[in-house]
Amino acid sequence: MNDWWREPAKLLDSPARDAAAARQGQLTKPPGSLGRLEEIAIHLAAMQGREKPVLARPWISVFAGDHGVVEEGVAAYPQTVTQQMLLNFIAGGAAVAVAARETGARLEVVDAGSLAPAPIPGVVWDQAAAGTANLARGPAMTPDQLGHALAAGRRAAERALTYGADIFIGGEIGIGNPTPAAALGCALLALPGTTLAGPGTGLDEAGVSRKAVVIDRALVLHEFAPHFEKGGTQPEVALAALCALGGFEIAALAGAYIACAQAGLPAVVDGFITTAAALVACRLNPGAREWLLFSHRSAEPGHTRLLDALDARPLLQLDMRLGEGSGAVVALPLLRLACALHGGMATFAEAGVSEGTQ
Amino acid sequence: MNDWWREPAKLLDSPARDAAAARQGQLTKPPGSLGRLEEIAIHLAAMQGREKPVLARPWISVFAGDHGVVEEGVAAYPQTVTQQMLLNFIAGGAAVAVAARETGARLEVVDAGSLAPAPIPGVVWDQAAAGTANLARGPAMTPDQLGHALAAGRRAAERALTYGADIFIGGEIGIGNPTPAAALGCALLALPGTTLAGPGTGLDEAGVSRKAVVIDRALVLHEFAPHFEKGGTQPEVALAALCALGGFEIAALAGAYIACAQAGLPAVVDGFITTAAALVACRLNPGAREWLLFSHRSAEPGHTRLLDALDARPLLQLDMRLGEGSGAVVALPLLRLACALHGGMATFAEAGVSEGTQ
Repeated sequence: MNDWWREPAKLLDSPARDAAAARQGQLTKPPGSLGRLEEIAIHLAAMQGREKPVLARPWISVFAGDHGVVEEGVAAYPQTVTQQMLLNFIAGGAAVAVAARETGARLEVVDAGSLAPAPIPGVVWDQAAAGTANLARGPAMTPDQLGHALAAGRRAAERALTYGADIFIGGEIGIGNPTPAAALGCALLALPGTTLAGPGTGLDEAGVSRKAVVIDRALVLHEFAPHFEKGGTQPEVALAALCALGGFEIAALAGAYIACAQAGLPAVVDGFITTAAALVACRLNPGAREWLLFSHRSAEPGHTRLLDALDARPLLQLDMRLGEGSGAVVALPLLRLACALHGGMATFAEAGVSEGTQ
Repeated sequence: MNDWWREPAKLLDSPARDAAAARQGQLTKPPGSLGRLEEIAIHLAAMQGREKPVLARPWISVFAGDHGVVEEGVAAYPQTVTQQMLLNFIAGGAAVAVAARETGARLEVVDAGSLAPAPIPGVVWDQAAAGTANLARGPAMTPDQLGHALAAGRRAAERALTYGADIFIGGEIGIGNPTPAAALGCALLALPGTTLAGPGTGLDEAGVSRKAVVIDRALVLHEFAPHFEKGGTQPEVALAALCALGGFEIAALAGAYIACAQAGLPAVVDGFITTAAALVACRLNPGAREWLLFSHRSAEPGHTRLLDALDARPLLQLDMRLGEGSGAVVALPLLRLACALHGGMATFAEAGVSEGTQ
């Protein structure tokens, strides 16, 4: 398997960051009074290598995958909904499609491994396979399939770069995917299933308990529990976990985040599933971390644990739990306002305004 | 004094709210998965009286006032900055002006009582007086001035309605105005000065202590302390507090919120100062409360206390503390996305997507 994902991430641009931080101190406002919007503008300046960052061409890739583990009864919707939602994305009726239109973001949908038997017109066909195997009974995917799915993410990042994207948003659809996401989090953070198993899109209490049991069984089966014999933060552990417990859309997201970091393209992380993918990406390639912006804290209870593991403080907390990349697109206008304020406000000198007296 | 502000607020439209709530349950997403964005769309539907609310013509009125109390050393910037910032608003270099451009909102600036000796071209001239008197030594304003300032807010709301605004954002500028805002909060909530005196735009620790002492002195002087003899939630108490302790921009904001509620125009509240004005408005006219949307929780420590008193849960928490209405304008794209998702998403039936199986 090609180890492209080991290549280092691009370095942030320190002079651009310093210039942006200095500019923030000269704008006509009390220092620090724009709060997190100041941090974001400075971070984006460091990522884009310019004092005044711009978010003019946002790109969204939504990756789809199906999951063998749904046969364990861990999903609130029938598995056919994955393919139905692919059509809904293309037709423009899904949340992420509406939000993309509203924000002027370019949306593509990538079939990284749904059960669709043939390409769906309008959807990028990049299946690693038609759905994963049941992670509770064996490895979710083969090493070759894993390599394909990671590279599917890189291919999406390359399309974004060709488009001239200045920010990348990753989304996902895949009935049942909270289970592999939680299982990956448990494997990489040495946690039992109950800590990350949640209601997902609407599982009842019995379903959540069942999900935790399924995860614990899978952790034992794949030797991540009870003593986390494969534990550790080495890339090899993350790779093994992704192969045993992951999903094709999750692997594609991880590959996309890494490829964005290597190319110097900022990426915005959405909710629980994408954060699990971000955790995998940062274990595979720690340099990817500083290229990620975290959009929102989801209503899924385990999300905070994953965010904490990444030392991530998302911008928003709106009790969203939809996936698709929807929370990341909702945060996009705030990122843009951060840039607009940073670039468009007058300095004290320009405006002839007196600075503080203390 | 004309008691126009006692006239009842418009009633929310229950059938529109019910229709919007029913629609939310049919959209292609797990029920509730858009979190607060669903609540907002339903609330706006009830306010606008249509199943699918629209925010196409946002209006911002920024009210300016100067404050006699700055002679007590309670501000981090010289008083001339109020007038300098008026010019910066008009020139487009201030935060709220940049954010207005970015979001396509119409911005007007109203001089409700700065120290400007003559009208500033481009600024609406509606001075109640050239600055308030020092609230620590006597009433901040006369009853006539108070009537003028409240009506200045109503006149702004009327201009917004004439423009065809579908949402109203109130902002403020006035060096020193965290002190009257905190004093009003203390008077209406029976709190000592230390609970609401904060750093504002950048006061140091000694300045914050001085501010608390000034507020406590004023509460005693105007008989709101030590036993809060004038305490209570009657409109008359709020009116007396506004006259004794308020500012012209704060009174104008309160008048604007009430006039919006009477006309059925949703209004978005910004940070600490505007929330103090919202508290006054809701005491003067309790029906105003349900026409207010709260945009963000400011970094000013006392803000949470004011929000709690209004049972308000803002959308954002970005550590902003700038004023001008800036936080409310930053929230505007989220309100719009809530409407766009609500109005633009497909229903399960339209998209041919299966509903949950549980």
